[in-house]
Amino acid sequence: MTVYRELNTPLRTIMTPGPVEADPRVLRAMSTPILGQFDPAFTQIMNETMDMLRQVFQTKNHWAFPIDGTSRSGLEAVLTSVVAPGDKVLIPIFGRFGHLLTEIAERNGAQIHTIETEWGQVFDQDEIIEALERVKPKVLAIVHGETSTGCMQPLDKVGKACREMGIISIVDAVATIAGTEVKVDEWQLDAVIGGTQKCFSVPSGMAPITYNERVEKILSSRKKVERGVRTAEDAVDVLHPIQSNYFDLSQLQDYWGPRRLNHHTEATSMLYALREGARVVLEEGLEARFARHRLHEKAIMEGVKAMGLTLFNDVPWKLPMVTCVNIPEGIDGEAVRSMLLEQFGIEIASSFGPLHGKIWRIGAMGYSCRKENVFAVLAGLEAALIRNGAVVQRGEALQAALNVYETAAAEKVMM
Amino acid sequence: MTVYRELNTPLRTIMTPGPVEADPRVLRAMSTPILGQFDPAFTQIMNETMDMLRQVFQTKNHWAFPIDGTSRSGLEAVLTSVVAPGDKVLIPIFGRFGHLLTEIAERNGAQIHTIETEWGQVFDQDEIIEALERVKPKVLAIVHGETSTGCMQPLDKVGKACREMGIISIVDAVATIAGTEVKVDEWQLDAVIGGTQKCFSVPSGMAPITYNERVEKILSSRKKVERGVRTAEDAVDVLHPIQSNYFDLSQLQDYWGPRRLNHHTEATSMLYALREGARVVLEEGLEARFARHRLHEKAIMEGVKAMGLTLFNDVPWKLPMVTCVNIPEGIDGEAVRSMLLEQFGIEIASSFGPLHGKIWRIGAMGYSCRKENVFAVLAGLEAALIRNGAVVQRGEALQAALNVYETAAAEKVMM
Repeated sequence: MTVYRELNTPLRTIMTPGPVEADPRVLRAMSTPILGQFDPAFTQIMNETMDMLRQVFQTKNHWAFPIDGTSRSGLEAVLTSVVAPGDKVLIPIFGRFGHLLTEIAERNGAQIHTIETEWGQVFDQDEIIEALERVKPKVLAIVHGETSTGCMQPLDKVGKACREMGIISIVDAVATIAGTEVKVDEWQLDAVIGGTQKCFSVPSGMAPITYNERVEKILSSRKKVERGVRTAEDAVDVLHPIQSNYFDLSQLQDYWGPRRLNHHTEATSMLYALREGARVVLEEGLEARFARHRLHEKAIMEGVKAMGLTLFNDVPWKLPMVTCVNIPEGIDGEAVRSMLLEQFGIEIASSFGPLHGKIWRIGAMGYSCRKENVFAVLAGLEAALIRNGAVVQRGEALQAALNVYETAAAEKVMM
Repeated sequence: MTVYRELNTPLRTIMTPGPVEADPRVLRAMSTPILGQFDPAFTQIMNETMDMLRQVFQTKNHWAFPIDGTSRSGLEAVLTSVVAPGDKVLIPIFGRFGHLLTEIAERNGAQIHTIETEWGQVFDQDEIIEALERVKPKVLAIVHGETSTGCMQPLDKVGKACREMGIISIVDAVATIAGTEVKVDEWQLDAVIGGTQKCFSVPSGMAPITYNERVEKILSSRKKVERGVRTAEDAVDVLHPIQSNYFDLSQLQDYWGPRRLNHHTEATSMLYALREGARVVLEEGLEARFARHRLHEKAIMEGVKAMGLTLFNDVPWKLPMVTCVNIPEGIDGEAVRSMLLEQFGIEIASSFGPLHGKIWRIGAMGYSCRKENVFAVLAGLEAALIRNGAVVQRGEALQAALNVYETAAAEKVMM
């Protein structure tokens, strides 16, 4: 029999597109003792969390609650609950996570239509609207912030167009929620999925979602309460029942709503974490939080460029919380990343598919998005590059970052 | 804008069939800072957890890892990954959670066959074996410990029979794992799902599973690596691809295995919790832990009977960690439960379906399964019953429980 020793983890500076450092307040909240799932003290915590999630999503939607699983569980819960076999789904793809949406929708028997653009680009919204008009799908599923390429798709016109055409819009805002504007109501988005382990700075393991009455109407038409808790009033003959029990939003609603119908056992400690994370976000204020992400983004971008490196995503549609750096010719990207981790305790990311080995991705999200982390990653990257034989402008990166912070302070924008 | 106050939870004595009190060491482990999912320090934690789970499941199976979701996510992951549309599945039902298995399998397009027995009974194993011979299913799915009725189904002969007939056995051991014997290898079970929030005393939010090569062979035949991380070597034409991406065990294996293929972002803090929970279980030792559950079960049973109450599940097939008490004639079960919670801070459970309003369920699981909690629940129940007008044998319950503990001490069985 092998019993391992006590957990002894190194302390890392995590500058990836997630999972990032959790806020210390969130970590502390998780050590709160357990409450039973129907304890009034616990259902109150559920309700308070729903209310705070609505504020983070900038929505008046009634439904805003977490799925108990990692971010992609939120994507699957929404897609599985909305998309029935044969439904037409349009998915514009501009990176890896667009492909993920096709994977999930396809496994629901959807008739998938895609439009694709090169990794590093996003779509002109009119292009998407043209495709909507041509395909006439039931659902548009699209990524907001594509961490694989560091690009962000504007959605304000697309949401409005879907509403006018009677198309349900489903948006993956896993990377952007709590880090930059995700205006669910103003952009007229029908269902939006956020992530915890990125700008929210809550550990991976929950996926906050929100959706409106248009989505709820579809759920009602597919609702089938499970045997064992079903009552005589519950419908049993349903044309296209939702193909997952765990991800069945029509039943999850009854658990998060006043009926409190037993479904899963809510993940107690993760909910404590999410509640505390939402408090931290709202106490900072959404506007201030978004401005903080933009400030540190600028410091990273200027620092990296001052070193003599080029950016893959120095574009107007850049995802503010992810900066993609072109790996210099002749340099082994993985050797640099390993040195950063092993010598400096700093983690940055590589990428997927066509970008694998071509770019590094530096994240600055949530609690990880702060000045000392920015200085650390720039200093470490410069040192690791020099050690790996790269020619860089020595000593310039931190000066450039300092300039950004000093200018911002002078402008009283924020520190 | 509403930002709620700091988390302030009452401290409860949780004597339900879950979620129960988490071990304080587990709660502390969760406040450990985050590691990146591919940080070698983190993948080592993944491997260590797998190794300890194997020991808890008493198996030599290679695959033993958690699904990132609550217990039913583990059930759905196994059923969805194994059961293809049209597959025959036999499900013996002896309580609510048997119905849940039919729900999940049905949503996978399975051809469901059930045998049912009254709530409070279990099956003679020969009855199940006869049904297996008659139905000739691909899969037998069955609950081990049915918390809704407090009954435990013997499985040693059934597992062997399935092996001989080439049937895959899938067992829901959510309630029993780490609380009583679940001998995966000795009983020849093919896939077993455990829970965290019961005898494991880890918060809800993960579902440890294990499965053998027979299951892995089915997964391989259905494997389809997702776009965005797929390589040329990965098959794309699959007859019956797994209908969930999140619960696709063939892809989860590649994330938990040496290929470390990106799938979800492992729930960092919950994995810390599970690792610590497994350490606590193995340090106590499985045999000692099971004996502790039996000891406190006996004290609860004797205490309740000494009060003059009767048990619903005073049967040889009683689930050791759940004692079901018949609500006395004329007593409002919910009024007693509310008083226990509100005045004494003690939670016990009601039940579902035909047993709703007829029994209380007193759990004694994991960290909640200890002497002071047993005394508290017996004393509180007696007081709440008297206050609600019941005639009970006053003062006898704690004397009976003390007798059990003193006898056990005298026999040096354990304290």
